[in-house]
Amino acid sequence: MADPRFYSPSGPFSLRVLAELSGSTLAAGADSEAMIRDVAPLERAGPEELSFLDNPRYLSSFRDSRAGACIVRPRHTDRSPRGMVLLVSEDPYRAYALAARAFYPVPPSSGWISPSAHVAPTAEIGEGSEISPGAVVGDHARVGADCRVGANAVIGPGVEIGDATVIGTGVSLSHCVVGARVTVHPGARIGQDGFGFATGPAGYIKMPQLGRVVVHDDVEIGANTTIDRGSGPDTEIGAGCWIDNLVQIAHNVVLEEGCVIAAQVGISGSAKLERRVMVGGQAGFAGHLTVGAGARVAGKCGVTRDVPAGATIAGMPAQPIRDWHRQTVLLGRMVREKGKRSGD
Amino acid sequence: MADPRFYSPSGPFSLRVLAELSGSTLAAGADSEAMIRDVAPLERAGPEELSFLDNPRYLSSFRDSRAGACIVRPRHTDRSPRGMVLLVSEDPYRAYALAARAFYPVPPSSGWISPSAHVAPTAEIGEGSEISPGAVVGDHARVGADCRVGANAVIGPGVEIGDATVIGTGVSLSHCVVGARVTVHPGARIGQDGFGFATGPAGYIKMPQLGRVVVHDDVEIGANTTIDRGSGPDTEIGAGCWIDNLVQIAHNVVLEEGCVIAAQVGISGSAKLERRVMVGGQAGFAGHLTVGAGARVAGKCGVTRDVPAGATIAGMPAQPIRDWHRQTVLLGRMVREKGKRSGD
Amino acid sequence: MADPRFYSPSGPFSLRVLAELSGSTLAAGADSEAMIRDVAPLERAGPEELSFLDNPRYLSSFRDSRAGACIVRPRHTDRSPRGMVLLVSEDPYRAYALAARAFYPVPPSSGWISPSAHVAPTAEIGEGSEISPGAVVGDHARVGADCRVGANAVIGPGVEIGDATVIGTGVSLSHCVVGARVTVHPGARIGQDGFGFATGPAGYIKMPQLGRVVVHDDVEIGANTTIDRGSGPDTEIGAGCWIDNLVQIAHNVVLEEGCVIAAQVGISGSAKLERRVMVGGQAGFAGHLTVGAGARVAGKCGVTRDVPAGATIAGMPAQPIRDWHRQTVLLGRMVREKGKRSGD
Repeated sequence: MADPRFYSPSGPFSLRVLAELSGSTLAAGADSEAMIRDVAPLERAGPEELSFLDNPRYLSSFRDSRAGACIVRPRHTDRSPRGMVLLVSEDPYRAYALAARAFYPVPPSSGWISPSAHVAPTAEIGEGSEISPGAVVGDHARVGADCRVGANAVIGPGVEIGDATVIGTGVSLSHCVVGARVTVHPGARIGQDGFGFATGPAGYIKMPQLGRVVVHDDVEIGANTTIDRGSGPDTEIGAGCWIDNLVQIAHNVVLEEGCVIAAQVGISGSAKLERRVMVGGQAGFAGHLTVGAGARVAGKCGVTRDVPAGATIAGMPAQPIRDWHRQTVLLGRMVREKGKRSGD
Repeated sequence: MADPRFYSPSGPFSLRVLAELSGSTLAAGADSEAMIRDVAPLERAGPEELSFLDNPRYLSSFRDSRAGACIVRPRHTDRSPRGMVLLVSEDPYRAYALAARAFYPVPPSSGWISPSAHVAPTAEIGEGSEISPGAVVGDHARVGADCRVGANAVIGPGVEIGDATVIGTGVSLSHCVVGARVTVHPGARIGQDGFGFATGPAGYIKMPQLGRVVVHDDVEIGANTTIDRGSGPDTEIGAGCWIDNLVQIAHNVVLEEGCVIAAQVGISGSAKLERRVMVGGQAGFAGHLTVGAGARVAGKCGVTRDVPAGATIAGMPAQPIRDWHRQTVLLGRMVREKGKRSGD
Repeated sequence: MADPRFYSPSGPFSLRVLAELSGSTLAAGADSEAMIRDVAPLERAGPEELSFLDNPRYLSSFRDSRAGACIVRPRHTDRSPRGMVLLVSEDPYRAYALAARAFYPVPPSSGWISPSAHVAPTAEIGEGSEISPGAVVGDHARVGADCRVGANAVIGPGVEIGDATVIGTGVSLSHCVVGARVTVHPGARIGQDGFGFATGPAGYIKMPQLGRVVVHDDVEIGANTTIDRGSGPDTEIGAGCWIDNLVQIAHNVVLEEGCVIAAQVGISGSAKLERRVMVGGQAGFAGHLTVGAGARVAGKCGVTRDVPAGATIAGMPAQPIRDWHRQTVLLGRMVREKGKRSGD
């Protein structure tokens, strides 16, 4: 059971309702009105709880589980312990996520505007939005309805935020337009000047950065991630992108919809990632390149030129992952042979 | 045109004034008193706007541009479209930056000290400085004139800040002395304890960190960057250094003047970068080494020993970039041959 | 001498007391009641100050030092300058840290709860704890005794913090339980949602993250570091771990006691580091792997599979450091030979 200081489940829900919500099929013969009180992993779930089996690696936990109900693939239904009710799905992880969200929805806005928040008189706050203590909302900023603005977050002048968006504690927003149902985790910095300057004998001269950051709907932005505003064009984060913690996104970068960017990735100025590119942790991208739709970039990869759509790449400099694996094997063999010859 | 919610240009300025400000030469026959209202990229500029051509890759945009005026190199003057007024410069990007700064100067301080800022009675705030809501200025801290301190920034006890410096929202400063005309972007952390401890059977013992961070004039420090204070000596950031987002600078590091550090670089304790070292994103430096003046370090490079002045290095471990390119080519060839022999 | 704006030493202490505190032995014949006023490095220490020599590289500084007293190893006692009093220790760095902590203890809590802090009526603040301006303490949160909560830090609802813990400026804590004598440096983010979602044709669905972060006693967490809460199990940071700045720790990661994690390291979900693993800067760990006790991981290393206890690894992908050195040497030789053959 989750720590009650932090979580309390909604529900209970009947198996019938959970099957509907999760898009799964209740196995024949089950009591569709039996009530489920919570979700839990296989090892910890009890008779009134729902669990799931996705990775076959956990089949033994499945067989030993005391879960009252479990979401499984069709091919695993015959491995279930006695008495467990099965909900069948081709994608148990996804179905479980949907069920878990019924028990643990995103906490709603309290609608409370703290008297110790600093909201400019010209700012507009949409109906039902919550503004926490110490939060600052600048002149002419517009916050949509049902938003939650965390404690000590700062929303700069003119910034616009769509409905049902969550701005975490201590976040800074400036020069940006943020869509609906976006989550910005604590400490993220969006809209500051990009790293643009001209060099010269008397030092560097900052190039005024005159664009914005446009964050489309349903985006997730991780804690302490930084997204610089465009230099003239905008920096754009496409709908449904997921960006993890401590990611750096430079000016004029465009992420098309549905990109997934793991932690500590860095994307240099004016790079473009087309739809649904997936990037592993600590990878880096040079500027002014294009990564084709659906490409997959391994962790720590250094991408120095364009990547074709659908490719899977790894290494520094980036290469097709098969080549990178071969290179790794080859180098390992050479080192071992060398070791043998030198007798150590 | 830039989004008027965030930007409104100064001006207009005559071509004569813009030529002067940008250090460029107005082409013969142009009406030097014609007025220009804004700057814009080639594709978007109109008849009352100034643009620039630097990279010849954009020559076709130049030929198609409707910009009223454009800063170009001498060798590109004969490629201009009809009716475009030319300002000629050997460094169009720099000249354009200077012109753009006339239209979009750094926003001046409002001189307003928010009643919801927390300024210690013993702190000194220079004339004309702005202290935003929720900002905290500690005991005996001294903020210079015409500074802007962002919302919810925290300036610790005793910290000293020079004139016309900008401290971003949510920044933390402690145990540091910051020069004039410095910009610290949101969420940067300057002056916390370095990572210094002694080991032993009963655990680690923190070594008191008794130095400071000294940030010289005209420095730019990126969002969420961290700079630890010295252990006894100071950590120093030389005049005119540019540091991007999410950079880690450990205790006792010295950056001499004019270093440029791209995002997510990490510099370990007591390393020294001499004048005008340029470092690509995600590079890392071991501690206690020296990088000679003017050296260039490629992105993701791992620098494990001293680097001579003027060298260009890449790879992990770092090596001359020519060797690194050769190694890359050689490995690629070996992998392809191996693939052929194994028939796949 | 340390900058008096930031530091003022306790003391003075007699040599006898310093020998006791530091676990070192005062050399025969020294005046054990002579008073020492401060600590300082060899080059700067004067007659009333204590220094130390650990690394023999600094032997010449030792011989030239004007320090009144110095902590040294037994084998260096005969190299000391005239008039210097010696304190002998097998571990001078550690002994010096202990002495330095006597002069510069962790600043105690002022016990002041700022009237501009926002403490929920249901929160509990332990005796003697300091809550700085702009700090927010949420409903039912519990802060122990003698804690220091920095300006604009945010402690979420239900969070529990042990005694004598220091929460830096601008920190965000949620969904976490933090032990005693922990230091969380400015801007760290602890307890936000992990990066967990299910994919599907209609976009990604967030998996509710129902665990916590448990930070055990005597842990140090660096500036702007991010630690996501568990997805169901907890994310755990073992007692006495030291974590540097800008580190990413994903959901369900377990660090056993005494791990040392340098800056910008990334640890993916459900990875486990056993006791006293040491990790160099910018290293990365794939998810769901185990690193055995006492293993050492070089900077920039990419760890993609389990690591045996006590191993020392380097490279990407990670390999025994000896192999990695051989590989480096081998590649260097191949590149040089290639260069010779091609005549350049």
